[in-house]
Amino acid sequence: MTILDSLTEALSRLPGIGKKSAVRIAYYLLQADSAYNERLATEIRELKNRIRRCSVCGNYTEHDPCDICTDPSRDRATICVVEQPQDVAVLEASREYRGLYHVLGGVISPIDGVGPEDLSISTLVGRLHEEGVQEVILATNPTVEGDTTALYLVRMLEKRGVKTSRLALGLPVGGDIEYADRLTIARSLRGRTPLSADE
Amino acid sequence: MTILDSLTEALSRLPGIGKKSAVRIAYYLLQADSAYNERLATEIRELKNRIRRCSVCGNYTEHDPCDICTDPSRDRATICVVEQPQDVAVLEASREYRGLYHVLGGVISPIDGVGPEDLSISTLVGRLHEEGVQEVILATNPTVEGDTTALYLVRMLEKRGVKTSRLALGLPVGGDIEYADRLTIARSLRGRTPLSADE
Repeated sequence: MTILDSLTEALSRLPGIGKKSAVRIAYYLLQADSAYNERLATEIRELKNRIRRCSVCGNYTEHDPCDICTDPSRDRATICVVEQPQDVAVLEASREYRGLYHVLGGVISPIDGVGPEDLSISTLVGRLHEEGVQEVILATNPTVEGDTTALYLVRMLEKRGVKTSRLALGLPVGGDIEYADRLTIARSLRGRTPLSADE
Repeated sequence: MTILDSLTEALSRLPGIGKKSAVRIAYYLLQADSAYNERLATEIRELKNRIRRCSVCGNYTEHDPCDICTDPSRDRATICVVEQPQDVAVLEASREYRGLYHVLGGVISPIDGVGPEDLSISTLVGRLHEEGVQEVILATNPTVEGDTTALYLVRMLEKRGVKTSRLALGLPVGGDIEYADRLTIARSLRGRTPLSADE
């Protein structure tokens, strides 16, 4: 097996990369600038050494605690709970949220043998008191497991007098009503927002 | 900029990889087996050092001359002329061809300032005599530039008494007549093959 075949095989294991895309990328790298290939190789090799989990929120970071947890300009009274570190990046990209985060590391899923004790819930409870948290936004995915996990957390947080909320469900911006599924339409109707001519 | 952002940026320059796929791949690598990342990094770094062009046919290879040029079981009387090294891999995958190859390194394209002198045509002419070639299959792409290049080579090869042929044009196997373009349909009619009940 040549290095070209071996690299193609390795690339085709990446998510979203099939056999044909892998071949295309391998030939692209053959003709690419050596400095680019060197940089890509170095960053792939270094990635796992440089990135760790923040000991406070569980997000991926190069420094512990992470930049969000140590940012003095962020609202420390609000925590947004997400399933995965990727979700933090997506929420940050919206530039709408200025509070802190907490990464659960998964969702409650009996079928996969994941219970509340497998998620970083005890560190969340620890933070509530320590940081004087007033509101927890439950930003788990709108799936059966995400909803179950949110419900579990709501019950636990209510007992501790913390306000909870969940991300709104409805039509995606730029979406088409014609192609929206029945459940999304139902939720968008139930959560409809009043309009005023002033806005 | 963190290494995660930098790697995402580098990955998004690869063909067929957009911003979202790059993010997905970067997070996949964060959770991947370290041995896999190490292998991927090493192969990307080594690729350009290990792969060169075959001095005979111009194909990518780890040894010069390449495995195809030195294979004693191949038919040395037939040469298949292609535009790019990638095309050799595609033709080989069909397992239909047992002759040799010649990579032009492009096509005649006046608009891009590419003339016959920019392609490896003189080495092809050298091989005709040396290797006792009887047939040259012109496997340039069925585009204006590919056709022009094939026509140029046919004229040159005929003068030297070498038989030439071109890949058949027609419907792709598994394709749908309904979605075939006008020109492909016309070529598939012109090149129709007689049927017999014996086959």
